[in-house]
Amino acid sequence: MEIPKKQKAQVITEFGLNVKLQEIDVPELKSDQVLVNILYTGVCHTDICFMENALSTKKMSLPMVAGHEGAGKVVAIGKDVKNFKIGDKVGVKIINRICGYCENCHTSGRDNNCENQEELITNKFGTFQQYITIAEGEAVKLPENVDLKKAAPLMCAGITVYKGLKETNCQSGEIVAISGASGGLGSFAIQFAKNSDLGADHYLDASKPDLIKRVQQISNGRGPHGVLVVANAIKAFEDALEYVRNYGVVVAIGVPNQNEFKADLMNIIGRHLTIKGTTLGNRQDFKEGVALLAKGKIDIPVEVRGLSELPEIIERINNGQIKGRVVLDTSK
Amino acid sequence: MEIPKKQKAQVITEFGLNVKLQEIDVPELKSDQVLVNILYTGVCHTDICFMENALSTKKMSLPMVAGHEGAGKVVAIGKDVKNFKIGDKVGVKIINRICGYCENCHTSGRDNNCENQEELITNKFGTFQQYITIAEGEAVKLPENVDLKKAAPLMCAGITVYKGLKETNCQSGEIVAISGASGGLGSFAIQFAKNSDLGADHYLDASKPDLIKRVQQISNGRGPHGVLVVANAIKAFEDALEYVRNYGVVVAIGVPNQNEFKADLMNIIGRHLTIKGTTLGNRQDFKEGVALLAKGKIDIPVEVRGLSELPEIIERINNGQIKGRVVLDTSK
Amino acid sequence: MEIPKKQKAQVITEFGLNVKLQEIDVPELKSDQVLVNILYTGVCHTDICFMENALSTKKMSLPMVAGHEGAGKVVAIGKDVKNFKIGDKVGVKIINRICGYCENCHTSGRDNNCENQEELITNKFGTFQQYITIAEGEAVKLPENVDLKKAAPLMCAGITVYKGLKETNCQSGEIVAISGASGGLGSFAIQFAKNSDLGADHYLDASKPDLIKRVQQISNGRGPHGVLVVANAIKAFEDALEYVRNYGVVVAIGVPNQNEFKADLMNIIGRHLTIKGTTLGNRQDFKEGVALLAKGKIDIPVEVRGLSELPEIIERINNGQIKGRVVLDTSK
Amino acid sequence: MEIPKKQKAQVITEFGLNVKLQEIDVPELKSDQVLVNILYTGVCHTDICFMENALSTKKMSLPMVAGHEGAGKVVAIGKDVKNFKIGDKVGVKIINRICGYCENCHTSGRDNNCENQEELITNKFGTFQQYITIAEGEAVKLPENVDLKKAAPLMCAGITVYKGLKETNCQSGEIVAISGASGGLGSFAIQFAKNSDLGADHYLDASKPDLIKRVQQISNGRGPHGVLVVANAIKAFEDALEYVRNYGVVVAIGVPNQNEFKADLMNIIGRHLTIKGTTLGNRQDFKEGVALLAKGKIDIPVEVRGLSELPEIIERINNGQIKGRVVLDTSK
Repeated sequence: MEIPKKQKAQVITEFGLNVKLQEIDVPELKSDQVLVNILYTGVCHTDICFMENALSTKKMSLPMVAGHEGAGKVVAIGKDVKNFKIGDKVGVKIINRICGYCENCHTSGRDNNCENQEELITNKFGTFQQYITIAEGEAVKLPENVDLKKAAPLMCAGITVYKGLKETNCQSGEIVAISGASGGLGSFAIQFAKNSDLGADHYLDASKPDLIKRVQQISNGRGPHGVLVVANAIKAFEDALEYVRNYGVVVAIGVPNQNEFKADLMNIIGRHLTIKGTTLGNRQDFKEGVALLAKGKIDIPVEVRGLSELPEIIERINNGQIKGRVVLDTSK
Repeated sequence: MEIPKKQKAQVITEFGLNVKLQEIDVPELKSDQVLVNILYTGVCHTDICFMENALSTKKMSLPMVAGHEGAGKVVAIGKDVKNFKIGDKVGVKIINRICGYCENCHTSGRDNNCENQEELITNKFGTFQQYITIAEGEAVKLPENVDLKKAAPLMCAGITVYKGLKETNCQSGEIVAISGASGGLGSFAIQFAKNSDLGADHYLDASKPDLIKRVQQISNGRGPHGVLVVANAIKAFEDALEYVRNYGVVVAIGVPNQNEFKADLMNIIGRHLTIKGTTLGNRQDFKEGVALLAKGKIDIPVEVRGLSELPEIIERINNGQIKGRVVLDTSK
Repeated sequence: MEIPKKQKAQVITEFGLNVKLQEIDVPELKSDQVLVNILYTGVCHTDICFMENALSTKKMSLPMVAGHEGAGKVVAIGKDVKNFKIGDKVGVKIINRICGYCENCHTSGRDNNCENQEELITNKFGTFQQYITIAEGEAVKLPENVDLKKAAPLMCAGITVYKGLKETNCQSGEIVAISGASGGLGSFAIQFAKNSDLGADHYLDASKPDLIKRVQQISNGRGPHGVLVVANAIKAFEDALEYVRNYGVVVAIGVPNQNEFKADLMNIIGRHLTIKGTTLGNRQDFKEGVALLAKGKIDIPVEVRGLSELPEIIERINNGQIKGRVVLDTSK
Repeated sequence: MEIPKKQKAQVITEFGLNVKLQEIDVPELKSDQVLVNILYTGVCHTDICFMENALSTKKMSLPMVAGHEGAGKVVAIGKDVKNFKIGDKVGVKIINRICGYCENCHTSGRDNNCENQEELITNKFGTFQQYITIAEGEAVKLPENVDLKKAAPLMCAGITVYKGLKETNCQSGEIVAISGASGGLGSFAIQFAKNSDLGADHYLDASKPDLIKRVQQISNGRGPHGVLVVANAIKAFEDALEYVRNYGVVVAIGVPNQNEFKADLMNIIGRHLTIKGTTLGNRQDFKEGVALLAKGKIDIPVEVRGLSELPEIIERINNGQIKGRVVLDTSK
């Protein structure tokens, strides 16, 4: 297979949503990297935040190519690569390389918070292009039977939801409420939870008006044991601290539309509550999530469009017109 | 040993701090209880909250005897009791009986949140008296070598701090900050942490002005891995969410002087923070805490006064004039 | 509902398998107990061991009524009972009362190894009778929708298998082999594992000749991550230590036909293996297992016979002629 | 600082104990490695096993330089190295490089069982030389205040013991017996356990004749909660399974003088025992162990000799004439 020198990418040259489909260079391969032909890429609300330079914790530069959940096939491998061969299916996540020596890399389970990580969009072009290089350890190996259209959104939205559900720490017989289930990540979460089997027995859409009544029917009014908050309304998070059961865990994963929340500390102390924030997942979470997908335990409904249609998709996301997940075919 | 019919107690007959030393009946013993001669009882700021009926979650009745951390000796046992004999040393905690069948009793490690528990002060007279009955399973067996003066404050303040430190989940080489170390519970926490060995390597008094500088000296400015907040100022809790390290755990145990706090949800999500509220500890925590005391790994400095001096002690607590812990000798 | 004074029971008066269907007294109710009309009882190979006095760790007395997994309805409650009302469905397990004060009762998750527990068969008549008393905390509350025929074998075989699978600690994407799947407990285990969702993605019948080949197909020959050994042949356990993957966990739950096994300690050290023995489960395991049954996530195929047919069932068990589980209707 | 081209090393050219002090090349540095001047190296019984090619799981080649626990200073860094600078103190462990992509590297806490790891002695020359290269992620950073003589034996013996004690999972108030405390690793373990504070309250030398009596004095004859077996006699391991308490954990870390052991499976099942094998520790264990050393919580008594004296030390180890640990100064 011959690797082209040039490829298409959706580039922005000033912060904002004005993407332009351009021809750019295919990136050069280092000895410990694989070169992946991205066949599909998800589009996420966070891409818009990156493009608008709206994330205060990130130091962005221009030009930029956004996109941070992709799937494709290996087209070339660096000379030190042993775990991949040409043609292997690969997932592309935002973490592109980790250092292996920082405090987090040397703490079990924290590799996804490497202090020196290189990440897509911030440090190099993201998945709104056709080719990308990935350090061997961060390229997500996908079994042959995996559908790449569905694997792409697993690489951010899916793993984030999977990790969030795990962090509720709920067991068989317990109830998890998903708050904000009507939004993009939210509808994703409900499907994910219902189709997989992550411990808890009941998953409730907390955005429906009869949440309390339904919880009461199965819990004598004690509330859910865990809440996964994916809503962007801060009120949804504040409410969860009220209706969660004693000893309950409230996990927040969605980017809220407002940062500041108010809560009652005595409620947290007296009822032994736990609040956890989490993003994405570590290497083990990816391994587990991919296994769920390969085994057919989750099925992610996606709408497939072409990479050239990105401007329209961005507009629909901004207008709240997308339920579920749009995936772009980079060849179109 | 003959058990007296009458005993002294510090009783209140209307909500407020006007305690009266009265002669009351020694309680009757049920078949599964031990009768304990309380020799020492700690005095805690929470007793004042109970007396003033200031805890919205508790349904109080009058007359009331406060006090919820005591230590003494068994003077009589019910006919079904097998684990105690007369003369055994016993710790007295606020939980006086649990049901053994509710959801929390049937969830590992949650016995201290029994849905049907009987507790001192709320459901029966507390430790500001000379004799008390306790269900066998909740009477805290103390080894013979334990000093009862020091065991008394372990039964609430000590175990609460011990549990709070455990919940920070810090390991060897990590740093825990204790926020509010200048208060009653706080000075207790510092002593407890420094004298025991609960995993972390460093315990810092977060109330000292040079906290940040000291943390920086040992952590390159990344902040402590865990924070135990015992301060009653809500600001102390809010600050902890800022200076704690990525992936850090902030544990709140003190009753704050104001319930509502404000925080930044993106800070919690993006930095993978955990907030935990906790009170007291479960049976296993008591077992472990007693072992630490018996082994001499913690030494709790106490000021010993007489039960009759309770009014003066209450006043000093209200005025913030007590560092550490006052313990009352119930014979005086 | 009137409670009869007399009931039928399958009694033995000398050790051995010579059961006699007799009329005996309905047991008297204590204040903290429920009286249960056992409608169905499972029959387990261990009952035979009890009847033959073949368990060296148990101190048996005569007359004896065996049987230790039942299900029925509450027909009377003691005056202190609050969690049950007449008509409630109840599971009957071998642990009939725990002390609440021993070291294991005061260690989280170890309530099923109470040092002073009262258990069926050893301390009182078992489930091969129509009525039984149970301390409120150990009576297993069953939701109304549960089929009592299927709940009965959950009370020992089911929970033991559930706990054993949990102890393999396998995660999504991992492989558990069940060794001895052709036997009674074994076929049960396979069904249980396949119908529930306990983390692991693959459950293999390790007794089939092509185990290694099938594992290789999904694991590149590295072996399963966990093995649940329910086989009574000691060789099955020894083999598991060989074919389990590095870092693997081998859990043994079945009573072996021979006690002594041989193994290579360097294999265990060098490959970081874990061996765990476990029996039954704690209160939380029961709560979780019942939830799985109520939710329809496990379906236990049972053969229903009458209590009077016990002698024939015993013979069939002894001859290895039972696959799955026989449940006796105590009214027949 | 100028790096010499040549260095001294204790080389063997045929399997056996006939080491020869030779001049060999200083190894070449790759871009992601540090070059360390080993100042001290421990000598371990396992080095003798390597030299005699007696470890069936290892594929050895000649010539060989043994030694696998060292400490020294960085003298050069590869162009991609960011975490070290010249002069930094560094510990040298047997794992010299891990792949970052295998199943174990992608499972939290299993990095020390990388399927593609490069290790000293097997894959490259060990610490019985003056200079060594290490991949940045596996070079163990040591604080400036650490004594390199004491850090060297921490890199294998110390971490192995630390990890083994952790794996007993014992809590405050519990008892750990160390079996084989009179040997090299054993005396090390006792000192380590007594000087650090790893949860348990009591550490007993199980080789002393009065073990049972001493355990009884503090446990009513129930036995220790955990046992760390470092003895090379297989009987020590077999005994531990008998005297450990119900629910106890027996951790094996020493290389036994005989591989096959016998045990009673019903004892393991009925008493809920756990057996764990473990070697060395993962990156997090190293981080924690180094923190304990730096904080002064462990003090490892060492006998310092010169690298040229290795033949004599080997002989003394073979004759069982060494208590504790010998450390070689590579400059002598």
